[in-house]
Amino acid sequence: MVMPERLELDIQIDDVDDGLMRQAQARLDQLTKPLGSLGRLEVVAKQIVGMTRTLRPRLADKVIITMAADHGVVAEGVSAYPQAVTEQMVYNFLRGGAGINVLARHVGARVVVIDMGVAADLAPHPHLVQRKIRRGTANMATGPAMTHEDARAAMRAGMELVGREIDRGADIIGTGDMGIGNTTASSAIAAVLTASPVSRVTGRGTGIDDTTYAKKVAVIQRALDVNRPDPADPLDVVAKIGGFEIAGLVGVMVGGAQAHRPVVIDGFISGAAALVAVALQPQVRAYLIAAHRSQEPGHRVTLDFLKLQPLLDLDLRLGEGTGAALAMSIIDAACKILTEMATFEEAGVARQVG
Amino acid sequence: MVMPERLELDIQIDDVDDGLMRQAQARLDQLTKPLGSLGRLEVVAKQIVGMTRTLRPRLADKVIITMAADHGVVAEGVSAYPQAVTEQMVYNFLRGGAGINVLARHVGARVVVIDMGVAADLAPHPHLVQRKIRRGTANMATGPAMTHEDARAAMRAGMELVGREIDRGADIIGTGDMGIGNTTASSAIAAVLTASPVSRVTGRGTGIDDTTYAKKVAVIQRALDVNRPDPADPLDVVAKIGGFEIAGLVGVMVGGAQAHRPVVIDGFISGAAALVAVALQPQVRAYLIAAHRSQEPGHRVTLDFLKLQPLLDLDLRLGEGTGAALAMSIIDAACKILTEMATFEEAGVARQVG
Repeated sequence: MVMPERLELDIQIDDVDDGLMRQAQARLDQLTKPLGSLGRLEVVAKQIVGMTRTLRPRLADKVIITMAADHGVVAEGVSAYPQAVTEQMVYNFLRGGAGINVLARHVGARVVVIDMGVAADLAPHPHLVQRKIRRGTANMATGPAMTHEDARAAMRAGMELVGREIDRGADIIGTGDMGIGNTTASSAIAAVLTASPVSRVTGRGTGIDDTTYAKKVAVIQRALDVNRPDPADPLDVVAKIGGFEIAGLVGVMVGGAQAHRPVVIDGFISGAAALVAVALQPQVRAYLIAAHRSQEPGHRVTLDFLKLQPLLDLDLRLGEGTGAALAMSIIDAACKILTEMATFEEAGVARQVG
Repeated sequence: MVMPERLELDIQIDDVDDGLMRQAQARLDQLTKPLGSLGRLEVVAKQIVGMTRTLRPRLADKVIITMAADHGVVAEGVSAYPQAVTEQMVYNFLRGGAGINVLARHVGARVVVIDMGVAADLAPHPHLVQRKIRRGTANMATGPAMTHEDARAAMRAGMELVGREIDRGADIIGTGDMGIGNTTASSAIAAVLTASPVSRVTGRGTGIDDTTYAKKVAVIQRALDVNRPDPADPLDVVAKIGGFEIAGLVGVMVGGAQAHRPVVIDGFISGAAALVAVALQPQVRAYLIAAHRSQEPGHRVTLDFLKLQPLLDLDLRLGEGTGAALAMSIIDAACKILTEMATFEEAGVARQVG
């Protein structure tokens, strides 16, 4: 385990509880349905039992932690949107008009919006959590995006924030992001940590044209050449070519896993954070549930690398935690199957012949 | 349009409203998100607008119509469960202990349980709708499962029942089924109406072994040889090799489409009913949304034939309407994206560069 020393935190992540998972499977097999006929729902219910260490998991308090930050690399012209959109979208989150607000309301989740490093001074708001590390990262195409110290601070912030939400009752955590330029950082991380060619893990983000796409690939390659992040040192990777929201989400995942909470990872940016988190501490992986498969090509590579099978495949590529919100509802449904369905015995239904 | 004469009913199904769908697309493109970044949610929202003819669709009253019936073909030993399970599961539905009850509660849908032809006299219950055509179909391996007249009666019952629910306020309809032996009938229908070899559209249903599987394929082939259902006459197909719940669901789909309601089709049995409904009246198709891709191999063939892309892929194979329930929630979320998200202008967010 690499993290404690580097993060100067005492992190212990428990394995999921195999014995309880076996008991959950035994109960699933007694429910009034053909064996295994609820497919992924049964698998997920069992996973949640293993993570939460209860045979009657209740996912009442659903929390989506959406972290926002800016990226110096946008100076290279890699995004279809101006940097100001990060700040503007944070205000949109706070007013409840964004995609994540709509979907979180739909599934009964609350959204916690964190300024991890927006390149503007945001007006105070009762629902905005201020944990700004800096006003945007430096341009990774010309040097490290941030120092190791800043990366550690962002991760610690993520751990503290998720801990606070868990203290408030969070049963399940979803991750979300906002940051113009953050698919560029995520592709860079995915290239290094999955050992893939840049072009294979780079997509069109918010919707760039062919010329901008070629530039984006070249810029990421340059960032790798300039910074030479060490694939064996995840902190070095997230510092040199990551972002404040990405490092923050690493902390959310580690902190969630530490507290035995399921962490539903959204799309490509959350996936990049998961690559870092699992590289730091492999046992985090067992607490992650992949919400969906994004349209971003690097996301597929990332999920395959992490051996996580996404629950949904709806061609989403918005981020913010939108996919996590929808997936949380499916996960909640899976737990209710385990806890609310009648058994063959209770219902007086005949079992399979022979 | 073949149906009116054959069903002796005056059926007119309108096209979806293309003009309103274009307006919905225009609004989707003004919302605070990159163009198209909510993928299938955007496609579905637009479809619902086209079906319901309103730019502000509200899917408040969600109704799942679960039809139960028995199948004479179980005498051939094609199922892993005894026939009594159909009746027992109906009681389980009425007590709220089945998978469909749990998932319908989760998504805020109500379940309407219909006895279309269970091979037992069910005890009256305030939540059981009695429309039994007969106590189970005849064994299709030795002759027609039902008469054309019975098939018409079942379809009419489905149309009437969905009409009654729409009168009560149903905004969206889900279809569900219960009937030991009904994957056998559905495979037979899929073989005829998609012109596929029996083995390609036959699966393991509730979970049969290799020997029973081989028998199931042979029994279906025999049913086709004995009955020679006319692929050009969908009523003949559903009568000779279908089931009362399948014919009833055909009526639900036709009636839902006629009333401009989205119909969310569950798994393989609903898919077989959809094949019949669309063969009778091709315009029904535009009102169908495929909830999920079942583990049953014939379901994939059926959806491909109908050119319907499923929303979910969770390896479900329970039926009852369970997949429809989960999909309804996604569809509801899609409509809320359209109606609740802020536009760029409203939120003061900058638009895409260039």
